[in-house]
Amino acid sequence: MATQGQVITCKAAVAWEPNKPLVIEDVQVAPPQAGEVRVKILYTALCHTDAYTWSGKDPEGLFPCVLGHEAAGIVESVGEGVTHVQRGDHVIPCYQAECGECKFCKSGKTNLCGKVRAATGVGVMMSDHKSRFSINGKSIYHFMGTSTFSQYTVVHDVSVAKIDPVAPLEKVCLLGCGVPTGLGAVWNTAKVEPGSIVAVFGLGTVGLAVAEGAKAAGASRIIGIDIDSKKFDRAKNFGATEFINPKEHEKPIQQVIVDLTDGGVDYSFECIGNVSVMRAALECCHKGWGTSVIVGVAASGQEISTRPFQLVTGRVWKGTAFGGFKSRSQVPLLVDKYLKKEIKVDEYITHNMTLTDINKAFDLMHDGECLRVVLDMFV
Amino acid sequence: MATQGQVITCKAAVAWEPNKPLVIEDVQVAPPQAGEVRVKILYTALCHTDAYTWSGKDPEGLFPCVLGHEAAGIVESVGEGVTHVQRGDHVIPCYQAECGECKFCKSGKTNLCGKVRAATGVGVMMSDHKSRFSINGKSIYHFMGTSTFSQYTVVHDVSVAKIDPVAPLEKVCLLGCGVPTGLGAVWNTAKVEPGSIVAVFGLGTVGLAVAEGAKAAGASRIIGIDIDSKKFDRAKNFGATEFINPKEHEKPIQQVIVDLTDGGVDYSFECIGNVSVMRAALECCHKGWGTSVIVGVAASGQEISTRPFQLVTGRVWKGTAFGGFKSRSQVPLLVDKYLKKEIKVDEYITHNMTLTDINKAFDLMHDGECLRVVLDMFV
Ligand SMILES: NC(=O)c1ccc[n+]([C@@H]2O[C@H](COP(=O)([O-])OP(=O)(O)OC[C@H]3O[C@@H](n4cnc5c(N)ncnc54)[C@H](O)[C@@H]3O)[C@@H](O)[C@H]2O)c1
Ligand SMILES: NC(=O)c1ccc[n+]([C@@H]2O[C@H](COP(=O)([O-])OP(=O)(O)OC[C@H]3O[C@@H](n4cnc5c(N)ncnc54)[C@H](O)[C@@H]3O)[C@@H](O)[C@H]2O)c1
Ligand SMILES: [Zn+2]
Ligand SMILES: [Zn+2]
Ligand SMILES: [Zn+2]
Ligand SMILES: [Zn+2]
Repeated sequence: MATQGQVITCKAAVAWEPNKPLVIEDVQVAPPQAGEVRVKILYTALCHTDAYTWSGKDPEGLFPCVLGHEAAGIVESVGEGVTHVQRGDHVIPCYQAECGECKFCKSGKTNLCGKVRAATGVGVMMSDHKSRFSINGKSIYHFMGTSTFSQYTVVHDVSVAKIDPVAPLEKVCLLGCGVPTGLGAVWNTAKVEPGSIVAVFGLGTVGLAVAEGAKAAGASRIIGIDIDSKKFDRAKNFGATEFINPKEHEKPIQQVIVDLTDGGVDYSFECIGNVSVMRAALECCHKGWGTSVIVGVAASGQEISTRPFQLVTGRVWKGTAFGGFKSRSQVPLLVDKYLKKEIKVDEYITHNMTLTDINKAFDLMHDGECLRVVLDMFV
Repeated sequence: MATQGQVITCKAAVAWEPNKPLVIEDVQVAPPQAGEVRVKILYTALCHTDAYTWSGKDPEGLFPCVLGHEAAGIVESVGEGVTHVQRGDHVIPCYQAECGECKFCKSGKTNLCGKVRAATGVGVMMSDHKSRFSINGKSIYHFMGTSTFSQYTVVHDVSVAKIDPVAPLEKVCLLGCGVPTGLGAVWNTAKVEPGSIVAVFGLGTVGLAVAEGAKAAGASRIIGIDIDSKKFDRAKNFGATEFINPKEHEKPIQQVIVDLTDGGVDYSFECIGNVSVMRAALECCHKGWGTSVIVGVAASGQEISTRPFQLVTGRVWKGTAFGGFKSRSQVPLLVDKYLKKEIKVDEYITHNMTLTDINKAFDLMHDGECLRVVLDMFV
């Protein structure tokens, strides 16, 4: 317990400025205060939200900061009053907190906990509205309440899920964001029923997880849509039964899908972050009941639109954050499902690299072959 | 049975051209063919959809036509194969058909029957794609499959609900459109639970029926929003507990409501047909679960828009047609509820006039005091 109560100096990838390469720095990580947990991050993956904030397009992005939110690690120490995890526990940091006590948690209707948002939204911790990261006295902002691009990070106790220690952390780190988002969009937000016809727009990690979730839910047809036809072969392994490349059609893609499905799909999912595709995803839904779920995150300021008649005639427009999963209580169950081979995880990992390679890892995200890059934090 | 099988010549208000006064004409109404019902219309009310098509703004409007879709009457005769109604039955014509057999009816998910749409959408009857209305041989289009501004009309058998003959037709004619639309938006589409906070935009007939439905559903707060403050006193009788006039606030109305409700309402309803209000109605909903239902019908070509983040953070955008009620099976139950004094109807009728006054009745719709005008067809 040499480190407990002490400042830890460790390696972290720091985003000093928008759109400038991350720099591996020696960062000081303060001990956890009351209600906080310091986690040794062993593996982290990269997600588009990291890239988005890093790009400078996120108006709420704060710099310098430590990005990262899809990871797994081991509790190094806990602050006062923390009881649900202890040193040595295997954990997944959760950017969606779950306190169990706030208006949101108690509603039974949403996974969006309000407890620590005021702090995580502005890159600090709740108790003192300060950061636990610094470099020679200069404070560095947290990100999404997780900041997993650091060998050690401090998170709120409501933002950490304790998982089965048998689970391989280099795999289950993915259960911190993309995979649960896709599965949960199907299971929790849309509640797809057996026999449904499903359209998935975008066949990246999130879209593939939607396909996988739809297959598990018993969908009869799972139509994958992507502008990159190379994505289809892989998508078949995740459950897609058909493929459409919008570039190969003259008609608007919603019309192509309506024609192919005798009136439209029962459920559609936008897993790209493109507002025109969000419209197409709504409009390819069947009149009377078709439900479209927005999963992709659009650039700031962009708007979705459609004719209100689309909704008056029975289509439903929804969205999802972290697939509607309650993080602390449900991420451990997803880990169990993985251990029982009920859900895929390994298949989403296309590259393994190290923290020092993080800039190369970000470059890889633009490569059509890449799904998730997992970084080993201690090599 | 002198008229059965015969052409009936009777009075009808004919819309010869968009935006020109209706003309009371002697119209020939052909006998019902197989699967059709000829109804003697005793009372009809006016609804904004009639006014909209009449105005010429509806690109699908066909002229000359007989408008009208909120009415009650008595079956004069039935065509071959019609079994569920017979001469003498008291009925309400239903612009939403219910066949019980099509993909829509069998889905259990929607009230939008597809059986006769191909014909009713273009102003004719299914069997021969022709109209039953003519004037000296010149064919006059049907409207919404109902055309109730005529003393006799022909409808498809799937578009007529048989009701308790004890019910006063001069009242229950309102159960053909506006009142069920508002009640059903709350009960069927939104499924408002006890204790909910509800916002109703627009306090005309439809908005008041939403307030009434919300009160019956046990809503704890029912916030009425209208740009005409005179509407509030009456709205209180229908269940509204608070009133906001957007003109009296500098802030956008969605912000005013979010501030008043500690984060937003649980359910909102747009009962105007204004696309900016539709956006406000969505955005005044509570993060995580707030559901907004579009009830108003916007002018052709107008679009709704919002930031996708509104949906990603848990709001749901829906719409409703005829309040989600299955017409033939549920309109009779609404009549029964009226007879048991469980729902209001009389209170929505502000004016009683005759068919010959129909143009004056349309003028009255612009009057803030007016809810529904009921026309006696045979005076
Ligand atoms: N709502 C949430 O909680 C949540 C969580 C994680 C990720 N996301 C978002 O989900 C989205 C998808 O993430 P990902 O990691 O799967 O991304 P990705 O970039 O790996 O996948 C996107 C896919 O969309 C395809 N595509 C791009 N433009 C297209 C178009 N116009 N039509 C069809 N296909 C197109 C690309 O070829 C690619 O295959 C991102 O916007 C991400 O920010 C949301
Ligand atoms: N979806 C359906 O099945 C269905 C069925 C019937 C009617 N409708 C539609 O419902 C709408 C309402 O019908 P109605 O008969 O109650 O109409 P109405 O004209 O009697 O009532 C509209 C109310 O909205 C108020 N209003 C106007 N602009 C406003 C604004 N910007 N902000 C706040 N209030 C505003 C008016 O003062 C009025 O009180 C219409 O668009 C009608 O076509 C839809
Ligand atoms: Zn992510
Ligand atoms: Zn909470
Ligand atoms: Zn109407
Ligand atoms: Zn039907």
